[in-house]
Amino acid sequence: MIYPVWINGSAGTCIDPADRGLAYGDGLFETLRIEHGRAIFLEQHLSRLFNSCHYLGIALDAEKLRQDFSRFRATCSASGIIKIMVTRGVSGRGYLPDPAAAPTVIFSSHALPLYPAAFAREGVTAALCVQRLGQQPMLAGHKHLNRLEQVMLRRELAEMGADEALVCDLDGNVVEGVFNNVFLVRAGVLCTPHIEMAGVLGVMRSVLIAQAKADGIQVQQGQYVLDDFLEADEVFFCNSVNGIWPVRCLHDRHWQSGPVTRQLQDYWQSSLSY
Amino acid sequence: MIYPVWINGSAGTCIDPADRGLAYGDGLFETLRIEHGRAIFLEQHLSRLFNSCHYLGIALDAEKLRQDFSRFRATCSASGIIKIMVTRGVSGRGYLPDPAAAPTVIFSSHALPLYPAAFAREGVTAALCVQRLGQQPMLAGHKHLNRLEQVMLRRELAEMGADEALVCDLDGNVVEGVFNNVFLVRAGVLCTPHIEMAGVLGVMRSVLIAQAKADGIQVQQGQYVLDDFLEADEVFFCNSVNGIWPVRCLHDRHWQSGPVTRQLQDYWQSSLSY
Repeated sequence: MIYPVWINGSAGTCIDPADRGLAYGDGLFETLRIEHGRAIFLEQHLSRLFNSCHYLGIALDAEKLRQDFSRFRATCSASGIIKIMVTRGVSGRGYLPDPAAAPTVIFSSHALPLYPAAFAREGVTAALCVQRLGQQPMLAGHKHLNRLEQVMLRRELAEMGADEALVCDLDGNVVEGVFNNVFLVRAGVLCTPHIEMAGVLGVMRSVLIAQAKADGIQVQQGQYVLDDFLEADEVFFCNSVNGIWPVRCLHDRHWQSGPVTRQLQDYWQSSLSY
Repeated sequence: MIYPVWINGSAGTCIDPADRGLAYGDGLFETLRIEHGRAIFLEQHLSRLFNSCHYLGIALDAEKLRQDFSRFRATCSASGIIKIMVTRGVSGRGYLPDPAAAPTVIFSSHALPLYPAAFAREGVTAALCVQRLGQQPMLAGHKHLNRLEQVMLRRELAEMGADEALVCDLDGNVVEGVFNNVFLVRAGVLCTPHIEMAGVLGVMRSVLIAQAKADGIQVQQGQYVLDDFLEADEVFFCNSVNGIWPVRCLHDRHWQSGPVTRQLQDYWQSSLSY
């Protein structure tokens, strides 16, 4: 029997209007790829979630979440997505959290998004968003529920007609894509924007950095502007649902999928199999 | 008969877990003071709400909201708070809004917060938050549901033990209080930080600016650092629930309530009466 949504460990359809996740975006989320009934990079997702809860002072019962997640996953299709949301729970009006509030934990299962297989094989078209990410080191990196910037950027992307888009911060440094992290390769070095002032520390991003290092590829995290991407040998987007999308076109620059991208795609494919 | 929460025009207790207000903070809110059964500065609150909905592309039915609000207010106590939340509504997973999604409109009624009457009469103690506001002109001014910064700042304030605190942006300019806007008076000029890169364009802030101008007081919106406040003749916080709180102490500086503050407090008191 399939329950598409669980709230605090059992099937549910009802969030309290006084939940702080709704009132203030006071919470976090994770989006996990499920393949062969297995949650890909589960430990990395849970580790990020638990660390961010600790940082925000959300007293999540990690062991209960693990157990509930495992039971929920068993009710879901063998291939798809599970989204986890954790909020600080229900409290009265006002920004000050109620220390007695118990976190709300929401699991929902979803079908895989319907992107063309060619996105991974031949690559995607990329644009550059006009709207920019704000800078806030206090929240950078965390996958929190304050995602109005991404909503606005996603609307802009839809109007541009590209498959994905680079997003800069206010200083003009590229931070990430609208719903992916982004990498470039130049002279064999794998480079990606550091996530210090804006952006999400994606699980896929961390996994690929670790894997590249294990493969002997030099990795650099730093500040990169649009020109660094236009002059790169390879550019790709990644997230832990869709894997790796090579960029085949950005402004007047065109690429074929390159060797570092393909090597990391092979690793992603192997992660999806048993 | 009193219904403390209405959802989309009737009593309700249940928000869909797929509501974008929860998933992404994709929405807005207003907090209105109710006195003698009347919503104070109602038109200013609705105007800000409708303008921000338009800006975010949330297709709110303004006329229905007005009518529902009026019916809801009639069920509430004659003195208190009504909070309005408007979200983009329920949609599938992913940042892209579903153009068919109907906004969710939530009204809730609350008691007035229990602050000492002395806060308005003798003033409050103010501190300075160590944590700072990020900079994001795309969202500055709007009273949106992305309030994790305020949650973090409110926690910091609780640990400091002051009544309110000034909050700076990353450049060190004072933006606002944790849950108020802030003004200073120097040489008879009423000054308040412009809200261009961070902060909320509070209804009370706008009302006081307009009233001061009508009273022939010169008003200046600009960039102010901590020293501008320490050297000011008067400093006060304001919001449309609690009115005006003079600052009586900030670091080693102490004030008595000043004439401009008292003049604006008189205006606030008159706004509350019939």
